[in-house]
Amino acid sequence: MHQQFLQQTIELAVNNVAEGGGPFAAILVKEQQIIAVGVNKVTANHDPTAHAEIQAIRIACQLLKNFELTEYTLYSSCEPCPMCLGAIYWARLAAVYFACGRGDAAQAGFDDTLIYDEIIKPPAQRIIEMRQIQLADAVSPFQAWNKLESKIRY
Amino acid sequence: MHQQFLQQTIELAVNNVAEGGGPFAAILVKEQQIIAVGVNKVTANHDPTAHAEIQAIRIACQLLKNFELTEYTLYSSCEPCPMCLGAIYWARLAAVYFACGRGDAAQAGFDDTLIYDEIIKPPAQRIIEMRQIQLADAVSPFQAWNKLESKIRY
Repeated sequence: MHQQFLQQTIELAVNNVAEGGGPFAAILVKEQQIIAVGVNKVTANHDPTAHAEIQAIRIACQLLKNFELTEYTLYSSCEPCPMCLGAIYWARLAAVYFACGRGDAAQAGFDDTLIYDEIIKPPAQRIIEMRQIQLADAVSPFQAWNKLESKIRY
Repeated sequence: MHQQFLQQTIELAVNNVAEGGGPFAAILVKEQQIIAVGVNKVTANHDPTAHAEIQAIRIACQLLKNFELTEYTLYSSCEPCPMCLGAIYWARLAAVYFACGRGDAAQAGFDDTLIYDEIIKPPAQRIIEMRQIQLADAVSPFQAWNKLESKIRY
């Protein structure tokens, strides 16, 4: 069953290339039913976050009007990049299965491996300049959040 | 100057809590001009990827009709989570400055630290079931991509 859904992501990814998109696709499934399909739309949508996995998650969340997908399984044509991996945790998916690995993506010119390497470095050692700057009231948003009784936790 | 923009993100984040959103905000700046403001819209938009940084990146990319923001600096009320860090690399931002650290976010109940811990583990050891499944034609999307002369690289 896993192989069948993954096979579909491969076909969707090949088709997406023919349509001018990136070589990635993903499917969200619950109880063997597909709820959402995502293909890479970075260039078409002018959106660097429009990876297949994130597209599938956003589409499913819109359909369900929920910001969590705790009972859904993601099938992806390729191992999720760190951005998509983060999205998978925030969406609290049940499981993720993928066909290609990050090494295959790197060979095709996609920088997933670079980002995996960067993420574990302290901010100051990364290739993009990153720095924490002290502000007296930096935690005031969290203080406001903690005080608010009506908040919707996520 | 960095402090001034960060101070704005703190005020935006406090306001966003009052409006029912999460305690985070971000601003994208080029040559001291703000091009986009993002606030956390996870619950309001039913979108687990609608973090402040990603909102700002998406808004700026829509305005510029570009999937890259190579000359832009991001100011964020908090250290970006791994998902947003990935988005920052894909958008190829010039620099990132932030006020709170990931520890402050964790104290307020946001799982950034958990995701940072998970991302460095091999997929099989993560708390969400993740597994690569071999398929005979798994790399066919990349083969199609490599062959396509008209592709828009990203």
